[in-house]
Amino acid sequence: MADRSTAPSAPSAPSPAPRSRSWWGWGTTAEALPDAECIALGQLVPGAADTPRPVPGVRDLALPDVRVAPPAALAPLMSCDPGERASHTYGKAYRDVVRALDGDLAAAPDQVVRPRTEQDVVDVLDWAADADVAVVPYGGGSSVVGGVEYRAGRHRGVVSLDLSALDRVLRIDRASRAARIQAGALGPGLEAQLRPHGLTLRHFPQSFEYSTLGGWLATRAGGHYATLHTHIDDLVESLRVVTPVGVNESLRLPGSGAGPSPDRFFLGSEGTLGVITEAWMRLQDRPRHKASATVLFDDVHTAMDAVRAVARSGLHPANCRLLDPGEAALAGVGRGGASVLVLGVESAHVPVGGRLAELLTLARDHGGTPVPSRPGAPDDDAGRWRSAFLRMPYLRDALARMSVITETFETSCTWDRAAELYEAVRTRLGEAVTEVTGTAGTVNCRFTHVYPDGPAPYFTVVAPGRRGDEVAMWDEIKAASLEILHDHGASVTHHHAVGRDHRPGYDRQRPEPFALALRAAKQALDPAGILNPGVLIDPPDAR
Amino acid sequence: MADRSTAPSAPSAPSPAPRSRSWWGWGTTAEALPDAECIALGQLVPGAADTPRPVPGVRDLALPDVRVAPPAALAPLMSCDPGERASHTYGKAYRDVVRALDGDLAAAPDQVVRPRTEQDVVDVLDWAADADVAVVPYGGGSSVVGGVEYRAGRHRGVVSLDLSALDRVLRIDRASRAARIQAGALGPGLEAQLRPHGLTLRHFPQSFEYSTLGGWLATRAGGHYATLHTHIDDLVESLRVVTPVGVNESLRLPGSGAGPSPDRFFLGSEGTLGVITEAWMRLQDRPRHKASATVLFDDVHTAMDAVRAVARSGLHPANCRLLDPGEAALAGVGRGGASVLVLGVESAHVPVGGRLAELLTLARDHGGTPVPSRPGAPDDDAGRWRSAFLRMPYLRDALARMSVITETFETSCTWDRAAELYEAVRTRLGEAVTEVTGTAGTVNCRFTHVYPDGPAPYFTVVAPGRRGDEVAMWDEIKAASLEILHDHGASVTHHHAVGRDHRPGYDRQRPEPFALALRAAKQALDPAGILNPGVLIDPPDAR
Repeated sequence: MADRSTAPSAPSAPSPAPRSRSWWGWGTTAEALPDAECIALGQLVPGAADTPRPVPGVRDLALPDVRVAPPAALAPLMSCDPGERASHTYGKAYRDVVRALDGDLAAAPDQVVRPRTEQDVVDVLDWAADADVAVVPYGGGSSVVGGVEYRAGRHRGVVSLDLSALDRVLRIDRASRAARIQAGALGPGLEAQLRPHGLTLRHFPQSFEYSTLGGWLATRAGGHYATLHTHIDDLVESLRVVTPVGVNESLRLPGSGAGPSPDRFFLGSEGTLGVITEAWMRLQDRPRHKASATVLFDDVHTAMDAVRAVARSGLHPANCRLLDPGEAALAGVGRGGASVLVLGVESAHVPVGGRLAELLTLARDHGGTPVPSRPGAPDDDAGRWRSAFLRMPYLRDALARMSVITETFETSCTWDRAAELYEAVRTRLGEAVTEVTGTAGTVNCRFTHVYPDGPAPYFTVVAPGRRGDEVAMWDEIKAASLEILHDHGASVTHHHAVGRDHRPGYDRQRPEPFALALRAAKQALDPAGILNPGVLIDPPDAR
Repeated sequence: MADRSTAPSAPSAPSPAPRSRSWWGWGTTAEALPDAECIALGQLVPGAADTPRPVPGVRDLALPDVRVAPPAALAPLMSCDPGERASHTYGKAYRDVVRALDGDLAAAPDQVVRPRTEQDVVDVLDWAADADVAVVPYGGGSSVVGGVEYRAGRHRGVVSLDLSALDRVLRIDRASRAARIQAGALGPGLEAQLRPHGLTLRHFPQSFEYSTLGGWLATRAGGHYATLHTHIDDLVESLRVVTPVGVNESLRLPGSGAGPSPDRFFLGSEGTLGVITEAWMRLQDRPRHKASATVLFDDVHTAMDAVRAVARSGLHPANCRLLDPGEAALAGVGRGGASVLVLGVESAHVPVGGRLAELLTLARDHGGTPVPSRPGAPDDDAGRWRSAFLRMPYLRDALARMSVITETFETSCTWDRAAELYEAVRTRLGEAVTEVTGTAGTVNCRFTHVYPDGPAPYFTVVAPGRRGDEVAMWDEIKAASLEILHDHGASVTHHHAVGRDHRPGYDRQRPEPFALALRAAKQALDPAGILNPGVLIDPPDAR
């Protein structure tokens, strides 16, 4: 990566006041719902428990013995503090939260290691390969697919490789509107370092506060843009990846046709082929013009047709999220029974009112009723949706404490199958939920991203569970959802990644010759089989 | 690939009048310049030969003996006719044309095989792996990088796998605006099959008439769109690839985050990992609104800044090609000494005049002088440029007959290095040309595609050669160009691919861990090492 660019003016480091991260659930302990609110929330779900699961104290947890000690040279980077080990055991899937609340931490890593430099990462991998210690890369720990949980069992020990100390924006290239950024940067810190330069990455997944650039890249995250560049993949200029056999550094190129893309091979590799330490990312100028609006549709299929027309219009709205009636009700937007389309346009350069007007005309022509947005007003559906969106993970945790099962999964498929898939999930998954939980529960859907050739539907399932059986029940519902996606040729994931939880579906989705190629590549790059074993592919046979 | 779509209404097959393809040069024999025109053209290049190289009769060629006979089951698909073998020996690089005119056909394949079905492709690979016969996939044969020429030497025989009989649009999915297309379809035939449906792929490389979908995919071709989706990669929904260990078929997905993209792994694999037989491609509605204009700039660097502003404007012109003064003069557009920016906008849905006006305002704000386009008028620079563009390969062949060396190469780099790279190529490559040919020659440049973070510059070198030494001289100039690209961190190719001619530069550009992964994947998919050996990576050791 050429360095013909200016370093950000000091002080480039943001120093946010430290907040206490939850070891078991989403975000900070301060923002978790107190017991009384959990109970109130549970009362909205018929069949929920009456009392919340208690939150165990981290010092009371029964953690497995530490099996591996750090070598002297790496000791300053490593910690086997119980709080560290507990908070690095799981990601933030529903089943992770429930198991943590249960005090089930058998999978805890032996050590949490925090490299301060890329060389530290190299040294950790060298040591781990020699010592037969599995290395699970850990960014913000927000995985909802079992991406950061060790399950392979055969290694002599496990370390969680926490990259959060590598959080700097190292260079800004104004001419190319790009920045060289360390992979451990969390969303807010990354944006804080870009802001003084008038620049932004504009990648805002729901996990924004608690996920990192490296995590986004390793999982092909979906972000802010609902159309056009929906995955972070398209914002990558080049990557630096530490593999056990050397550092992989691609040229900074705006576009290339030189062989299969090295970057696209590491994007989505979920820590199995190497540890992403840096990337040159394409940036945006900060938008100065924004406008948003909501459109109501009496019928969800009419709404889908409208969204398809929007996706093909070339108008490229930044936001284009369709909520089905249940989802809209859950988010408290729209009106009873209507589907709600939330549209947003933005530009750094030119007013966007005209573009929004064109979008609304299109929506009207396709049977929608536009509701002009009034920011700040109590009926501002776009703003209300955004707040609900960011608050959702905390509500999910509160429901988990009330033994309510929630599951979210996202997919994509072409338009020819979209309506069928939507109905099939509503029907068949509804039946599975009834069978598993004894109640119908709710199955709602929104389209989070849309393409000219198909949408990315995102489903939310809520149903009461039986305390103690939640994980088993969740697993059954997950299995049913994977089956439906498979039957409809839909992706096992659009932007939540594969991890360990989606493996059964992914193994069917992935073409077998590509699986052979991937396994061979894994063997070449990680001959000792230490990198995030069990994610994407089976670990090699025990040594 | 799901088949929930309608088959095109019969007759879907175009039946163009057969035209006689040139065995040694571009396109058809009818369109090649006659001797008198070659001589006239040569007179424009000081130092060119006085007489054109003769074109050998295909029956007079000394071809190497045929070493392998087809097995009985495949015999109906194979031909060792001298004309077939001669026309499948090379692509259409300058050095290919000169060697063909020289009658140097030592690398001719033993057989040309034309599968009629995908199963035929499977059968050919099975036979070839058993028989130690190299298989060189061949689409339209338009490679300018040694992509279809066997050079490895160690195999018992070589077949050219000509996919031109697999040229059907098999399905059209109107709902998703996508089509399932066989890989051997040439540009015009492919578009002819889509036209009755009001649809178009809109991928129009310079080679359009004589290149195939499969070739575009295997080489990550650049096409029509100068901004946004410049590579065919972005138009791919799914691929079918026959590998020696099985057929790789990806799901039709508008977007996915399920592990590293299988499609992106085969895109750009240039026939080394498998034979692409089909793809579901994203289509466009046929544009009903088009507008174009040219803008003149006194200074090429001012023009580059303007193009950068256009690339970032979000206005996404379909055409945005910047010609430097020499390139403009060569194409007969603009006025002496000016750089010329050709802009084009198009839409299937809405008028584009406003968007063109915004682009012209932007160009004017950045120092340009717009010249409104008058289609059909004699001073229509946009139209004139387009005609010159399509005629160029025939002129190149005529110059080759006059022993004038021409070399074109394209690259990409970030904006921070673009001006420096431009000057370095002009200066250093100019010096190399002087050293090699004894004359300064000309080194011109255009930007064929532009991105927010950098351009794709395309350089054209013209200089008189010495008859008999042209290939050696061309090779020296090529080596010098690769060196300059390397020194500036620019890609060895933006859309012409790597083939065999760019290997030295590619080997330095490609990160070493990725090279290890690619070699391991190649070994897993093509254990016998028969697929296009020497392209991208070295063939495995002799068996």
